[in-house]
Amino acid sequence: MSNKENSNLPEKKGTWLTYRPDIKVLDCTIRDGGLVNDSNFEDDFVRAIYQACIAAGVDYMELGYKGSKNIYSSKQFGAWKFCTEDDICRIVGDNKTDLKLSAMADAERTDYHEDILPKEQSVLDMIRVATYIHQIPTALDMIKAIHDKGYETTLNLMSISVVPEHELDEALEILANSEVDVIYVVDSFGTLYSEDIQLLTRKFLKYAYAAGKKVGIHTHNNQQLAFANTIEALILGASYLDAAVAGLGRGAGNCPTELLLGFLKNPKFHIRPLLKVIQDHIVPLRKKISWGFDIPYMLTGQLNLHPRSAISFLDGKNCTDYVGFYDSLVEEE
Amino acid sequence: MSNKENSNLPEKKGTWLTYRPDIKVLDCTIRDGGLVNDSNFEDDFVRAIYQACIAAGVDYMELGYKGSKNIYSSKQFGAWKFCTEDDICRIVGDNKTDLKLSAMADAERTDYHEDILPKEQSVLDMIRVATYIHQIPTALDMIKAIHDKGYETTLNLMSISVVPEHELDEALEILANSEVDVIYVVDSFGTLYSEDIQLLTRKFLKYAYAAGKKVGIHTHNNQQLAFANTIEALILGASYLDAAVAGLGRGAGNCPTELLLGFLKNPKFHIRPLLKVIQDHIVPLRKKISWGFDIPYMLTGQLNLHPRSAISFLDGKNCTDYVGFYDSLVEEE
Repeated sequence: MSNKENSNLPEKKGTWLTYRPDIKVLDCTIRDGGLVNDSNFEDDFVRAIYQACIAAGVDYMELGYKGSKNIYSSKQFGAWKFCTEDDICRIVGDNKTDLKLSAMADAERTDYHEDILPKEQSVLDMIRVATYIHQIPTALDMIKAIHDKGYETTLNLMSISVVPEHELDEALEILANSEVDVIYVVDSFGTLYSEDIQLLTRKFLKYAYAAGKKVGIHTHNNQQLAFANTIEALILGASYLDAAVAGLGRGAGNCPTELLLGFLKNPKFHIRPLLKVIQDHIVPLRKKISWGFDIPYMLTGQLNLHPRSAISFLDGKNCTDYVGFYDSLVEEE
Repeated sequence: MSNKENSNLPEKKGTWLTYRPDIKVLDCTIRDGGLVNDSNFEDDFVRAIYQACIAAGVDYMELGYKGSKNIYSSKQFGAWKFCTEDDICRIVGDNKTDLKLSAMADAERTDYHEDILPKEQSVLDMIRVATYIHQIPTALDMIKAIHDKGYETTLNLMSISVVPEHELDEALEILANSEVDVIYVVDSFGTLYSEDIQLLTRKFLKYAYAAGKKVGIHTHNNQQLAFANTIEALILGASYLDAAVAGLGRGAGNCPTELLLGFLKNPKFHIRPLLKVIQDHIVPLRKKISWGFDIPYMLTGQLNLHPRSAISFLDGKNCTDYVGFYDSLVEEE
């Protein structure tokens, strides 16, 4: 990290007693949690998270994916893989609240011309485009189309830990000139340490800052660093912060919303409604599905690998043969 | 944190590919884990941790406490509350290995004149004196006596998050002039964020550096920050790093040794022996005793409280009534 890259950026934003109105907490419990159970959440659960987010002062709630029905079967996947207006409105009505709603659109896995309605026909406020680095051209086309439909947009650049730095610089330069409102650092593999987060956040901020855009952070807990890395990024100036109730999300899960709100100083945030939804809805859910830190996720995180091998290992019979799993990962290298 | 305090210290030590020979990993699984089960570990378990530490390249293993038999009943507490030479040697023989051994001596809870033998009669290498700020005079007397017996010594200043800063400065000035080798930052309540760790580590280093002493870090995982805060402190220059296999320790537990070794670059460290002891010994232990992150520990951490109320709550019948527990904590304030 050269000093040059830093020159226009403050060393950090805020002090321990101030709060930054630019901070936006986005709860992605239903969306990222949907990767654990094929988005098969009961309406009661989704409604409880929605109401908890409103009461807790969360800024955005992500309800799920805008997945292509040509790719995903509605027999396997639940409603939150598709987020039709009918399904959303069954939970939120016309959402006359301060909580904004978002859905995620994966590059190449969303029929965005058809399935994302003009904003005036939708209760959604924001569409987040998730993309790998090689899909950026597609993602840019999606951003333009979705922006023109009237939505707030974000670009979530996944698997950042395996993106070559020169490609990242080129991508950020292009994204800075796009219609997108927020550019997200996404640690899909849960592999980044604080020093990596610092370098990436400062790099993203440099491009975003100059273009009047914001930076977001989405972390995974493979190395028990999801919360730590989220506050690291926010201290440096990232302002869109992803979190999930009880960390519910794929594999090792995400930054827990209840930890993040405990850190933030803005008096609009309240932790009690989160405790309530955890005891009433997360405790029973843990008897049905599993997520959160475990040794196999730690190992894929340490080795900068996608968690899919750990997920598959933990679904198997010998799910505590950590040495065997480690050996298989290292041999593959 | 004034610049003045920083003036003699490097901004950070090392780069991502170097390693620092000054780093010492201390595994406190049996000692801090003893706070979960009154130090009642089977010999097989202690031996397995000992052998794993040797194979993993860990520098120190802490076997337990030098607790006073006038205070602790040997009916309630296991051998590792007292760490007699007979008990230790049953596990380690005469410890002809590179792994150094330590025991902890609590201020006012150790008969240190009688129970800590002259070094030449003991297989222990180091005694760590744990103290609250008001017990510093006692701790200094212990340090002198134990140093004079021939041991390496550390001073572990507990509950640092409730120590007034002017008292801390006075204590560090006195400690810098004592015989102690290492001064530890101890986040007993698991309440500190990265910015607190930075401030405290730099402050401790300022005093220790000038006196030719080292700084250590001991964290708890109440806010899922034990590992993050440990690497934060080490990046700034702390060199004695406490960790426990699978985080085994009181309440939310400690920084997991397997996460820490995954971060450190020194080729003498190996993670595979830790995976082996986890699958063979920690997995079965989890069926008998509980530790690790949970919502009640998060709440005491966020509120800068000792975890005892959370431990007691989790032992009770309504151990998922998080809202009730939160209300009781906030009312007490």
